[in-house]
Amino acid sequence: MIGASFVLGLRQAGLVGKVVGVDVAEAELVTAKTLGIIDETATIDTLPPVDLIIIATPVGVMPRIFNALAHYPWLADTLITDVGSTKQSVIAAAEAAFPDWPRNFVPGHPVAGREYIGVAYAVADMFDGFRVVLTPHEKNDHGAVMRVAALWQACGAHVEQMSASAHDRVLAATSHLPHVLSYCLMESLATTEYETSIFDYAAGGFKSFTRTASSNPVMWRDICLNNNTDILYWLDHYLDTLAEMRDLIADEAGDELLAVYERAKSIRDNHIHLTQTQSVAKSSDTATQTLASFVSKDKTK
Amino acid sequence: MIGASFVLGLRQAGLVGKVVGVDVAEAELVTAKTLGIIDETATIDTLPPVDLIIIATPVGVMPRIFNALAHYPWLADTLITDVGSTKQSVIAAAEAAFPDWPRNFVPGHPVAGREYIGVAYAVADMFDGFRVVLTPHEKNDHGAVMRVAALWQACGAHVEQMSASAHDRVLAATSHLPHVLSYCLMESLATTEYETSIFDYAAGGFKSFTRTASSNPVMWRDICLNNNTDILYWLDHYLDTLAEMRDLIADEAGDELLAVYERAKSIRDNHIHLTQTQSVAKSSDTATQTLASFVSKDKTK
Repeated sequence: MIGASFVLGLRQAGLVGKVVGVDVAEAELVTAKTLGIIDETATIDTLPPVDLIIIATPVGVMPRIFNALAHYPWLADTLITDVGSTKQSVIAAAEAAFPDWPRNFVPGHPVAGREYIGVAYAVADMFDGFRVVLTPHEKNDHGAVMRVAALWQACGAHVEQMSASAHDRVLAATSHLPHVLSYCLMESLATTEYETSIFDYAAGGFKSFTRTASSNPVMWRDICLNNNTDILYWLDHYLDTLAEMRDLIADEAGDELLAVYERAKSIRDNHIHLTQTQSVAKSSDTATQTLASFVSKDKTK
Repeated sequence: MIGASFVLGLRQAGLVGKVVGVDVAEAELVTAKTLGIIDETATIDTLPPVDLIIIATPVGVMPRIFNALAHYPWLADTLITDVGSTKQSVIAAAEAAFPDWPRNFVPGHPVAGREYIGVAYAVADMFDGFRVVLTPHEKNDHGAVMRVAALWQACGAHVEQMSASAHDRVLAATSHLPHVLSYCLMESLATTEYETSIFDYAAGGFKSFTRTASSNPVMWRDICLNNNTDILYWLDHYLDTLAEMRDLIADEAGDELLAVYERAKSIRDNHIHLTQTQSVAKSSDTATQTLASFVSKDKTK
C-alpha cells in the first residue's frame, strides 16, 4: 500500500516512466499491473537496471533485499530509498550487506498510512500534507538526499531530516507504542470469559482506539523486533503511568483524575490538530526548486 | 451534545412540541436556542410540567438532579430517561432520591458519541444505526420502557435491554477502559523529557488512538468514579496482558508476537466492522409498531 501509493504519487506528478514491480506475493503483482501501478514485474534477483529503487517491505525483510541488491554492478547509478518504520535497523542491514555504504541509498519513512494491507488500497494522495522523515547516513551523497526529498515533495509531503536514533525514539512514542497498546486491548479482551460478544457494544471510541490493531501483523512484529529498545523505553513509562492511574481510580481520587484528563485533552487539542497543516518552511521550498535539476524524467530503462 | 442530538432526532421524527432546556452553563442555553434545539429555558428548580425529561449530564451530577425532580408533584405523569454511561450508579442515585422508585424513569445509554463537547456539535442522526441500551428497574412500568424504546427507535437506534450490572461490566471493557488507556498515553508522553515536540510526529494511528482523550474530562472523571469496580476488573487484566507483551518484545519472541497481532487483527476485522449494521431484529419491529400509541405528539404544556 505504501510503496504503491508512492509510485502513484510520482506518476501523478509525471516523474516516472516505466515501473518494475517486485513482490513475493504473485497476486499483489497482478493487482498492481491491473491497476496501472506497475508496468512489468521482476524478482529481486532479476532486476533490470533502474534509476530509482523504492524498498517498501516489512523491515524484517530488508536484510535479504540489501544482500540481493549488493550483487548488481549498476547500482552506483541508482537512487535507492525505503519506507521502513525503523531506521537504525535498516541502516545496520545496509551496512552489513554492502562492503561500502551505498552513497545513493537514502533511508526514509513517511509518517502516514492506514490500517489496510496491499496495493489495492494505494492512493496517489496518501502522503499529501503528511511528514516524511529522511535519516541520511554520514556517507550519503548530498545530491541523492535532495533528490529523494524532491520525490516526496512532489507527492505533497513535508520532508524533514533527523538522525536515525532520534527518529526511532520519537516514532516509538507516537506510532509503535500506540500500535502495541491497541493490539494489547484486543488481546486482553479476547482472553476473558466474555469473548467476542462484548465487541457488539463497541462504539466509536473503541473503533478508533483499535483501528491500528487491524494493521499488518508481520510489519508490526518486525517493528517490535527491530526497535525494541526504544519501544520498551516508552512502554515501561506507560506501564508505570497506567499503574498510577489505576490507583487513582481505585482510590476514587476525583481531583487527580480530572487533572490528568484535562491535561491530556489540552495537549491533544493543541498539538495534534496542527500537525497535518504544518509546513516545514524554507527547507522544502529550497528543495523543491532543485526538483527540476535532480529528478530526470522518463529515464527508466 | 448527546442530549441535544436526542432532541434533534426527535424533532426530525416529528415527535416533540415545545422543548425546555436546562443547563448550568448559560452559554449552552443561548446556543441551543439560537440553533432551534430548545424553545425556552428553565432551571432544575423551576421546571414546568412536561411529558418527557431527558437527563443528559455527567453521571456525577445526577444525584442532585434526582433530588430536585423528587419535589415535583406532577412527575408521576412524566416519562423520564437519561443517557448516563454508568447505569448502576444512576439507579442508585434515583433510589436514594425518591421514596419509591419512579416507575416512569427508564435508565438508558446510547452507545454512540463523539469527542466533542456541547450543543453546538449536536446532530439529528447521531444515533442512527447505533445501539441504545436500556436497563429497566424491576419496578419500572412496562409501558414507560416501551415508550422510551420507541423514542430512540424514532432516532434510528437499535434498542436493547440488559441488566444495569451487565451493562456496566461490558461498557467498562469497550468504552471506559479504552478512554482510560487513551488519556494515559497522553499523560505518559507528556511527562517525559520529550514534551510536546514529539506530537509533531503523530500520524493517523496516534490520532485515532488518542481521539477519545479529547473527550469531556468531567464526564470521564465521573464515569471512573461511578464504575470503578468494573473498570478495574478490565484494567488489571490489561496491565497483566501488557506486561506479558512487554516481555515478548524484550525477549524478541517474534512468533508469539505475530500470533498475538494476528489474533487481534482477526477479531477486530470480524467483529468490529459489523456492529453498526447489525439489527436487533424482531424486538425493534414490534416496539416500532407501538410508537403511535405510546408517543403522543405536541402535548408538552
